[in-house]
Amino acid sequence: MEKNKRIVLAKRPEGLPDESIFRLEECEFPRISEGLVLVKGVYFSVDPYMRGRMIERRSYIPPFSLNETISGGVVAEVIESRSGTFQAGDYVTGMLPWQIYSLGDPRFLRKVDAKAAPVSTALGVLGLTGLTAYFGMLDIGRPVPGETAVVSGAAGAVGMVAGQIARIRGSRAVGIAGSAAKVDYILNELGFDAAIDYKKTDDIGPDLDRACPDGVDVYFDNVGGGISDEVIQRINDNARIPLCGQISLYNATDVPMGPRLQPVLLTRSALMQGFIISNYADRFQEGIGQLAAWMKEGRIKYAETIIDGFENLPRAFLGLFSGENLGKLLVRAF
Amino acid sequence: MEKNKRIVLAKRPEGLPDESIFRLEECEFPRISEGLVLVKGVYFSVDPYMRGRMIERRSYIPPFSLNETISGGVVAEVIESRSGTFQAGDYVTGMLPWQIYSLGDPRFLRKVDAKAAPVSTALGVLGLTGLTAYFGMLDIGRPVPGETAVVSGAAGAVGMVAGQIARIRGSRAVGIAGSAAKVDYILNELGFDAAIDYKKTDDIGPDLDRACPDGVDVYFDNVGGGISDEVIQRINDNARIPLCGQISLYNATDVPMGPRLQPVLLTRSALMQGFIISNYADRFQEGIGQLAAWMKEGRIKYAETIIDGFENLPRAFLGLFSGENLGKLLVRAF
Repeated sequence: MEKNKRIVLAKRPEGLPDESIFRLEECEFPRISEGLVLVKGVYFSVDPYMRGRMIERRSYIPPFSLNETISGGVVAEVIESRSGTFQAGDYVTGMLPWQIYSLGDPRFLRKVDAKAAPVSTALGVLGLTGLTAYFGMLDIGRPVPGETAVVSGAAGAVGMVAGQIARIRGSRAVGIAGSAAKVDYILNELGFDAAIDYKKTDDIGPDLDRACPDGVDVYFDNVGGGISDEVIQRINDNARIPLCGQISLYNATDVPMGPRLQPVLLTRSALMQGFIISNYADRFQEGIGQLAAWMKEGRIKYAETIIDGFENLPRAFLGLFSGENLGKLLVRAF
Repeated sequence: MEKNKRIVLAKRPEGLPDESIFRLEECEFPRISEGLVLVKGVYFSVDPYMRGRMIERRSYIPPFSLNETISGGVVAEVIESRSGTFQAGDYVTGMLPWQIYSLGDPRFLRKVDAKAAPVSTALGVLGLTGLTAYFGMLDIGRPVPGETAVVSGAAGAVGMVAGQIARIRGSRAVGIAGSAAKVDYILNELGFDAAIDYKKTDDIGPDLDRACPDGVDVYFDNVGGGISDEVIQRINDNARIPLCGQISLYNATDVPMGPRLQPVLLTRSALMQGFIISNYADRFQEGIGQLAAWMKEGRIKYAETIIDGFENLPRAFLGLFSGENLGKLLVRAF
C-alpha cells in the first residue's frame, strides 16, 4: 500500500509567513467506510484567503487548528467508492485536506467532467475563483457600456476573469499587475484596454490618470493598501467597489492605516461592498454555465501556474505573496 | 422701503472656520419682474454639508463663490407675486440666498402648508434632513426586526429621525451623541433603546459592547472618524453602513488617516454606501408623506434649536461644529 502524506499547520504565522509554519508528515492511509469515497488529490489550490484561516480571528470561515491538516480546494480522482454517487476513476472537487489520499463525503463533492475542460479549471475559471469574479463583477460591480472598470491583482486568477467580464459587458477594463510579463499578458492575450505595472513606479496616480481619462466607475479590489487608495481617489459618482481581497494587508502585524475613504465615498454616492463567494452558493450553476459558455466562445481566457509535487504546496502558497503566479496557482500531485 | 441685508463668503476657511469667513452687508432691495416672487426669509437652515461648499473641491454641489451671497435651505414668506403659482402671504421653501429679501423662481420653490405643521419643519423633519434620514435608513440601512441600528450624531436633525425610523422598522436603536442632555433626550423623549455620550469617555468601545450585545447590523454614520472606527469594528455579517455625513472630518487640514476598513467590510460581507439626498428627488413626495403620517401617529418626534436674528447666521453655522444644537438648527429672521 502506498504511503500517505499530509501537510499540517505547524505554527500560526506572524507577518509574512515562511515555510516553518507548515510541516510535511507521513500519516495513515485512510480506511474507507460505507457512504464515502477514497480519493487521491490531483490538483491542490493555493489561495490568498487561506492566510486568514491561519490565525485565530473572527472571519467568515473558521481558522485552521494547530497541528491539523490544512484544507482547501482540491480536484481529486476517486480511487474507491462506497457510494452510489461516484465511481472509481471519476474526478471530483470540493474542500479536501492537503493530503495525498483522503476520504470524501459525496454530499460535499461535485463531479468534474474531464471531457468538457481540463479538470484543473474546476479550481479556477470554472471554480471558485471564476465564480468570485463573476458574482463580484456582475452583482456588485455592474459595469455598463462606456464605463471604466479597474481591476487590481489583474493577472491573478480572479482578477483576469473579472476584467474580461467587464469587457464582455461593454466597459473598458484597466488592469493593475506586478510585472511587465503580467501587463503584457492581460493587454495582449486577454484584451484589457490598459494595464499598469505598479512595481515600475512609486506613484501609480499619473498612470491611472492616463489609463482612466473618464474616471473610474467600477473598482474590483483584490489588493487593498496604497494602490486602492489611488484608484478610489479617482472614482466617479455612483461608482461601485466590490471588495474581493486585500492581499497587501494580509501579512500586516499592526492595524494597517490609510487615508479615510468615507469622505470620497460620501461625496460621490459610491458603494463599497465586501462579499464572499459562499453568499452566492445557490447561483453557482448559473455562474459556471455562463463562464463555460464564454470560454467556448473565446471571450474568457485563463492562465494557470502549475507547480509539480505535493511537497511543494507550502512554497507555492508563499509565492502568492510575492506575486509569482500568473492566473490560477495550483500544485499538481500526480 | 426696508433695508436689505445679505451674508457673503468673505474668505475660504482653512481648518475650523470662524466668523471672519463671513461678511454681513447691506445690499439693494430686489426689483421684482414678471414670473418671479419677492420673498422675505423667515427660517434659514444651517447644515454641516455647507462647510464643503465653502472650499473649492470636487463634490456633488458646486462651491460657493468668494464675495457672493451664501445660499441654503430657507422658508420664506411671499411678499409680492408676479407668478400664478404663489400669492402674497404664502410660505415657500427652497434653496435661497442668505438675504432678508430676495427674488425666487416659482419653479424651484415648494409651497409650505402653514396649517399642517409649523413651517420650520419644512427645513427639518418634513424637509431635506427628514428625507435624508428616511432614504438613508430605509433604502440603504434597511433595518429589520431584531436587528441593532447604531446612529452617530443621534441628537442632530438627521440622526434623531434616522434612529426613530429604525425603531419603527422593529430594530433596536442605539444613539451616539455629545452631551448628557442629548443622551437624555434621545433615550427618554425619542425612545432610543440605548445611548452613549461620547464626550464622557476616551474609548466608546466598552459602551458600544454594552449597548450592542448582538453586534451592529446598521450603522447610520453622520460623524466619521474614531467613533465610526469603533462602531465598524463591531458590525455583523451583511451589515449596512449608510454614509450620510463625516462632520468630524470637515475641518481637517490634512488628509485624515485611520485604520483601513476594507478588511472588516470584506470578511463580513458588509456594504458601505455614500448617498446624497438629491439622488432620491423623484421620491420626495413619498418620503414627506410617510414622515408626516408618522408624526401624526406620534411615532416620529423632532427637536429644533432656533436662534433669533438674521445677523446670527454665521455664529449659528459655527455652532454646528461644537455640537450646540439639539435637532434641527435654524435661524429665525422675523
